[in-house]
Amino acid sequence: MATRRRETKRQPHPRVAVDAVLFTIEAGTLKTLLVKIKQGPFLGQWAFPGGLVQVGEPLDTAARRELYEKTGVQDLYLEQLYTFGEVHRDPAAHTVAVAYFALVPPGAHALTRGDKYAEIAWFPVSELPELAYDHNAMAITAHQRLQAKLSYTNIVYSLLPPEFTLGELQTIYEVILDKQFDRRNFRRKMLALGLLKPLRKMRRGAHRPAALFAFTRRSPMNVEVL
Amino acid sequence: MATRRRETKRQPHPRVAVDAVLFTIEAGTLKTLLVKIKQGPFLGQWAFPGGLVQVGEPLDTAARRELYEKTGVQDLYLEQLYTFGEVHRDPAAHTVAVAYFALVPPGAHALTRGDKYAEIAWFPVSELPELAYDHNAMAITAHQRLQAKLSYTNIVYSLLPPEFTLGELQTIYEVILDKQFDRRNFRRKMLALGLLKPLRKMRRGAHRPAALFAFTRRSPMNVEVL
Repeated sequence: MATRRRETKRQPHPRVAVDAVLFTIEAGTLKTLLVKIKQGPFLGQWAFPGGLVQVGEPLDTAARRELYEKTGVQDLYLEQLYTFGEVHRDPAAHTVAVAYFALVPPGAHALTRGDKYAEIAWFPVSELPELAYDHNAMAITAHQRLQAKLSYTNIVYSLLPPEFTLGELQTIYEVILDKQFDRRNFRRKMLALGLLKPLRKMRRGAHRPAALFAFTRRSPMNVEVL
Repeated sequence: MATRRRETKRQPHPRVAVDAVLFTIEAGTLKTLLVKIKQGPFLGQWAFPGGLVQVGEPLDTAARRELYEKTGVQDLYLEQLYTFGEVHRDPAAHTVAVAYFALVPPGAHALTRGDKYAEIAWFPVSELPELAYDHNAMAITAHQRLQAKLSYTNIVYSLLPPEFTLGELQTIYEVILDKQFDRRNFRRKMLALGLLKPLRKMRRGAHRPAALFAFTRRSPMNVEVL
């Protein structure tokens, strides 16, 4: 321990923070969770929930702790997104931010804002205000990663029930990618990715009966393209 | 500046390091660059080149600086891999390591080892010794990322000349993925990814003439699967 303390204090070094970018789809809109800062140089601005990593605390533990303390959200799979190291991103001190992200079903988590924040809210990703720190850049990186992952992973399983129609899946892809797909092309390409299995069951209701599908796995997996 | 210094010193926090995982293919073998430590608790062990980030230094600048100081390698595109935050990965102090990786052509960079290191060498990825810190885990993460990126990016362009045959490309894929592909299946799948363009030229020599290809772009790009 003596060694550790001495080494830690020997010279100034950047601080380490964690931030969490949560996405959901609500009423056909891709949204992300922000908290409104009520003190310091970013007073009145919105930011992703996050904070400093403590000595002796693993990064993903810190990310889950900060997310819980600032929003009340817990019990979800946070995936590391990217580490942001621009020197002046935090005017208080050189702070390296390890960002995490996750997709959550709408309404699945009750929100409780932390004491240091004035408000907490879901914002449409396409209409974010000017955020604190470099969080606008973080939002863009997170959205791009989410979009890219649609084509080689089963990442959207967390937004869908165990059984769903290809139409429901297509809607989610269209909302996240902000583009329309031809129904037959989308169906052909999705099935070629090998992420889905047909269930030999139909959804019946007000509309024409539609075939039901499931993900082959409901934990993170990548497509085998080659 | 006063604020920054106070904030930096207020409480102990983890240190930030950068490490660089370089891959090359030499004589049909995937290799990675290591330096041998000659002091401290990891004396005599091999590690990826890296070191602490300085206050006021951007992460990727630190990664390039450490790589240059420890190996003499410079002028290459380092891509951020992952940030490792296991608390005891460095026995000297809690140190968060932001790892970078790159693919380099064999022999393209002359090596000059830094003063703090006993040796520098390329090791076959399949036969790494027990490395310092958590660098065996870092090697696995880097290799997995490299393998995954083969299927949705043009990452191997840096290992190939501007014009190449599909046989040369297949060899690189087989070395990195450590598996054999059927020639016609590989050809069909690669062309479907849209990363290559045929050049309407042939390579002539000792073997049967072979069609030449180029990457549609020689900078990082992702496949459009959907």
